[in-house]
Amino acid sequence: MTSRRRILVLGEGFSHDPHYGKTMRGIIRYGPDPVVAILDSKRAGEEHEGIPIVATVADALVYEPTVAVVGVATQGGRFPSAWRELLKASIAAGLDVESGLHEFISDDPELAELARRRDVELRDLRKPPEGLNVPTGANLEVDAKIVLTVGSDCAIGKKTVAVELDLEARRRGLESVFVPTGQTGIAIAGWGIAVDAVVSDFLAGAAEQLVVEGARRGGSLLFVEGQGSLVHPMYSGVTLGLVHGSAPHAFVLCHRAGSTEIEGCPGHPIPPLGELVELHERIALPARRAKVAGIALNTAEIARDDDARDVIDAVAAETGLPTDDPVRFGAGLLLDALLARL
Amino acid sequence: MTSRRRILVLGEGFSHDPHYGKTMRGIIRYGPDPVVAILDSKRAGEEHEGIPIVATVADALVYEPTVAVVGVATQGGRFPSAWRELLKASIAAGLDVESGLHEFISDDPELAELARRRDVELRDLRKPPEGLNVPTGANLEVDAKIVLTVGSDCAIGKKTVAVELDLEARRRGLESVFVPTGQTGIAIAGWGIAVDAVVSDFLAGAAEQLVVEGARRGGSLLFVEGQGSLVHPMYSGVTLGLVHGSAPHAFVLCHRAGSTEIEGCPGHPIPPLGELVELHERIALPARRAKVAGIALNTAEIARDDDARDVIDAVAAETGLPTDDPVRFGAGLLLDALLARL
Repeated sequence: MTSRRRILVLGEGFSHDPHYGKTMRGIIRYGPDPVVAILDSKRAGEEHEGIPIVATVADALVYEPTVAVVGVATQGGRFPSAWRELLKASIAAGLDVESGLHEFISDDPELAELARRRDVELRDLRKPPEGLNVPTGANLEVDAKIVLTVGSDCAIGKKTVAVELDLEARRRGLESVFVPTGQTGIAIAGWGIAVDAVVSDFLAGAAEQLVVEGARRGGSLLFVEGQGSLVHPMYSGVTLGLVHGSAPHAFVLCHRAGSTEIEGCPGHPIPPLGELVELHERIALPARRAKVAGIALNTAEIARDDDARDVIDAVAAETGLPTDDPVRFGAGLLLDALLARL
Repeated sequence: MTSRRRILVLGEGFSHDPHYGKTMRGIIRYGPDPVVAILDSKRAGEEHEGIPIVATVADALVYEPTVAVVGVATQGGRFPSAWRELLKASIAAGLDVESGLHEFISDDPELAELARRRDVELRDLRKPPEGLNVPTGANLEVDAKIVLTVGSDCAIGKKTVAVELDLEARRRGLESVFVPTGQTGIAIAGWGIAVDAVVSDFLAGAAEQLVVEGARRGGSLLFVEGQGSLVHPMYSGVTLGLVHGSAPHAFVLCHRAGSTEIEGCPGHPIPPLGELVELHERIALPARRAKVAGIALNTAEIARDDDARDVIDAVAAETGLPTDDPVRFGAGLLLDALLARL
């Protein structure tokens, strides 16, 4: 094994999908280690952001990967059954395997035995640490300003916005730390807890631990990766536990331009942004009255920059809040808005 | 072992405590099987609602218990270490043991081995079933009217109010089912899922399963036991997952008369009831706009009935909602208010 991690992303069937392929995209864009190949048999021979797409694990070996990372996030976090062969092939090829699904690969007797024999490691990014508990109140005593990204839906950029704000803050010389709360964030930063995999009673306690740890790592400004949405019929509990447990001083509200319904949940509308702002501010801890400091608008589906600007301006006018697309136009404006408030 | 369950409640150190002894009180008041003794060494020789309190498991045997039930709910659900001896003594005496804590007794190698040798059962009421997942949308298709009790704090009577409403509805000949979502509810009803012990991502999915099961058990009217509070800094995530996953048609808002702060959380105020009503109605699923149909006021700390009535009338005037203490004065008024709305 080389000392430097070289990543093969397992994206079978999902590498083109903006929702389920979000782990892959996060690792490629923000991870510290190079992604040398992507496995997706239906797209073999193509490239994704200059990275070759291959059909099989064997085909990937020419790029000398050291670790296979499961690059999809399935609903409910179960493995598609066809994946077992992919994981076995990766282990057989001598690769460590990293997964962020709820179904833990290290608990699978067959995979664990194969890994033992081949002397490779199986890492479950979503496996919660031992000894979690309810919050102690330490979240309100953390010596740092805490910003939480929240949103109108899943998979619209809450993690990306937190990462971009952290990068911009560090460029400016601020003591900023990105606080990962989900599998992709953990894969990027190398630490964290996937709060959606924690026993529900300990959700807020896990979030508290994360902001305490963020400050311990030197952050006087913490950008906490948000999860789900207060209005998501499946994941709202995770969202509120994180909102209360991380005790933010300010929110950044993320939204995909033009979305009016929760993705994959027909009949579940997204309320107007003004209502969402008010809902977050009302439900924030009375002991730490967080306000929404700005709107991060995901304009990826709008082709022209001019059109994206128009949509951003319209949302700023509608909400009266600083608004920008930090991926498209940089995180400077939103960071300015936050620093003015904190 | 007799065919009929006879319960010894293990309440060591907590049998007098209204918060941590709530499991004990729930089983005594609403459980189908008799509680024949309570163990609490500091109160040995006293009685609780006519039930003898004993110092040791050996002292309890004269009352012929068949099962020892852990009657306390510690914060975070861990076992006080002194309890290990009590559990071992119970097993050694040939009693089954039932626990609703997060720390599973059946996973403890020493206790499991003792139980195997003595041929008794260890049952963890909070152990989630296998195969949980995110909701499917079946919650919105359940052929029943669903009522969820919500509240301003923990341990103020959300379970009790749901049980009392269910009892009153059944007295009137309605097809009503109580839907248990926590360890005491499960101990009372003999089925259910402790949603606070479920992996956070599957909270709403577990709640959905419970209302589907409630209808399958013949309920055309379901009274779902609420958990925590939207404004509780520790447990709000559980609350919101349950609010969205159980998809109620109406809420009953529970409150302890006079409380202005979350118990055990200094600095965390309870907002005025009018605000709490609005918060619940705003955060209800847009696809199922639940309203608060009434307020269940816990007046247990007010000595005189007349004074309790005055406080109830004041809350009714303040909120404009039907208000009563269903434990003290019966659940009739609140059930009428619900039936008028559903």
